[in-house]
Amino acid sequence: MTDEQEVTDQVVASFDAAKDERFRELMRALVRHAHAFVRETRLTEDEWNAAIGFLTAAGHITTDTRQEFVLLSDVLGISMLTVAVNEPATGDATESTVLGPFFVQDSPRIEPGGDIARGAAGEPSWISGTVTDVHGTPVAGARIEVWEADDDGMYDVQYEDGALAGRAHLFTDAEGRYRFWGLTPTPYPIPDDGPVGRLLEHAGRSPMRAPHLHFKVTAPGHRPLITHIFVADDPYLRSDSVFGVKQSLIRPFDRHEAGTRAPDGSRPDRTWTSASFDIVLRRD
Amino acid sequence: MTDEQEVTDQVVASFDAAKDERFRELMRALVRHAHAFVRETRLTEDEWNAAIGFLTAAGHITTDTRQEFVLLSDVLGISMLTVAVNEPATGDATESTVLGPFFVQDSPRIEPGGDIARGAAGEPSWISGTVTDVHGTPVAGARIEVWEADDDGMYDVQYEDGALAGRAHLFTDAEGRYRFWGLTPTPYPIPDDGPVGRLLEHAGRSPMRAPHLHFKVTAPGHRPLITHIFVADDPYLRSDSVFGVKQSLIRPFDRHEAGTRAPDGSRPDRTWTSASFDIVLRRD
Repeated sequence: MTDEQEVTDQVVASFDAAKDERFRELMRALVRHAHAFVRETRLTEDEWNAAIGFLTAAGHITTDTRQEFVLLSDVLGISMLTVAVNEPATGDATESTVLGPFFVQDSPRIEPGGDIARGAAGEPSWISGTVTDVHGTPVAGARIEVWEADDDGMYDVQYEDGALAGRAHLFTDAEGRYRFWGLTPTPYPIPDDGPVGRLLEHAGRSPMRAPHLHFKVTAPGHRPLITHIFVADDPYLRSDSVFGVKQSLIRPFDRHEAGTRAPDGSRPDRTWTSASFDIVLRRD
Repeated sequence: MTDEQEVTDQVVASFDAAKDERFRELMRALVRHAHAFVRETRLTEDEWNAAIGFLTAAGHITTDTRQEFVLLSDVLGISMLTVAVNEPATGDATESTVLGPFFVQDSPRIEPGGDIARGAAGEPSWISGTVTDVHGTPVAGARIEVWEADDDGMYDVQYEDGALAGRAHLFTDAEGRYRFWGLTPTPYPIPDDGPVGRLLEHAGRSPMRAPHLHFKVTAPGHRPLITHIFVADDPYLRSDSVFGVKQSLIRPFDRHEAGTRAPDGSRPDRTWTSASFDIVLRRD
């Protein structure tokens, strides 16, 4: 045991000369916690080898459009915990959840009431709401990024064609209002044909995410908000594979008959849904 | 804070259904310790991103002959701690140290007194000793694998030519004795042109390993031994980049003039060294 503590002490001390104070703090803490895991579990050499093999496989499957390490962080709840640490619920502002691996910097812009689908298949969904600050003051000109999977559970970037679909950005009007056509979110598995998928299988865990629509909302003077809305009454709400669900983000998606008049005056020729989501930003 | 503990509790519970008891135990412990790290350090989203980028870069530089995750484990002392947990010093058997990333399964066989260099450049070194059990009984026919870097600090597998050099295996004789020509170990950096090298640089740590010669000793009925011998009085003994040094494994390497008669009757035409290493194996 002395031996074991000696190794840890040596390694922690090896970061004493690091000039960057935060880096030093992080590395020392990483060493302490990683060593505590090895000591507590009495990790065997075969298990250590399996871990090295897992990380290697995760590295080799990772590309510009497939991020296995983000998936790993997601299914171990590390992503969600990092959100909880950095964006704690305050009771008055909209809660945050994970960004996920499918955000894209330069999405197409749509006008208010426009359609983000751009060819992505699925049931139309009319989404509307307001962006205000915590005092109820409307935030005009807030940039709202939205993105979601199609009804095959695939994001645009998971297809080979390079087209952007099921994603767009728009801006709130002078009264802080926004509205657009999206798709009714459907459940889908996180990419599970790699090491993280095998880990979930071994754990008897489902790879399914609760149906959701991603939001990223930014406005000068306000803290950026990264969140989702979730579809009420979905069975996957209780077992979201990345632990992203928060009660306050669950919204009813009301379903309407084909031909019913929508808020923008159109009469969709198939069933459609509607949901509202009022967003409250904190000041910077 | 409640939020944070809630995330951890959810993730720990998500492994409840895992059938393999040890896997369940390991994953729960991994989650608890990883989450404790994030909570304690208040890890920021930028730092989380940097960690994902680090792991991705480590994955992409890793090949069949370059193992960045093993290097990472080595420089964080996780490899050495795993050795300490699984092969604790017992006082009567030879101590273990890290395997390192350069072991190769099928090394050439040499006869007693043969030369492992096979073209690897360096100062000849006569290494000899015995293999016994903890009661001093000689172990005949023990298989001794030895491998080391050349005087450019490179292992054979780090060259493109595919030749095996600076490595071999041999067997102890009926009295448990062994002897061979190797190379006087020289200090060398672990591969430091990747993310682990940049981590060491940022930490103000040297990538240098204390000069050493690797041993792996196996014999029926005995516990396999993976270890090194280190060269006495070397300045890198105090700052070995992988924390592999143990006092009991340091050996004087005596230097002899060119032309001096060696134990095998030869007279090397350059300076040579000699070291002895008596190996004590535990019963299985």
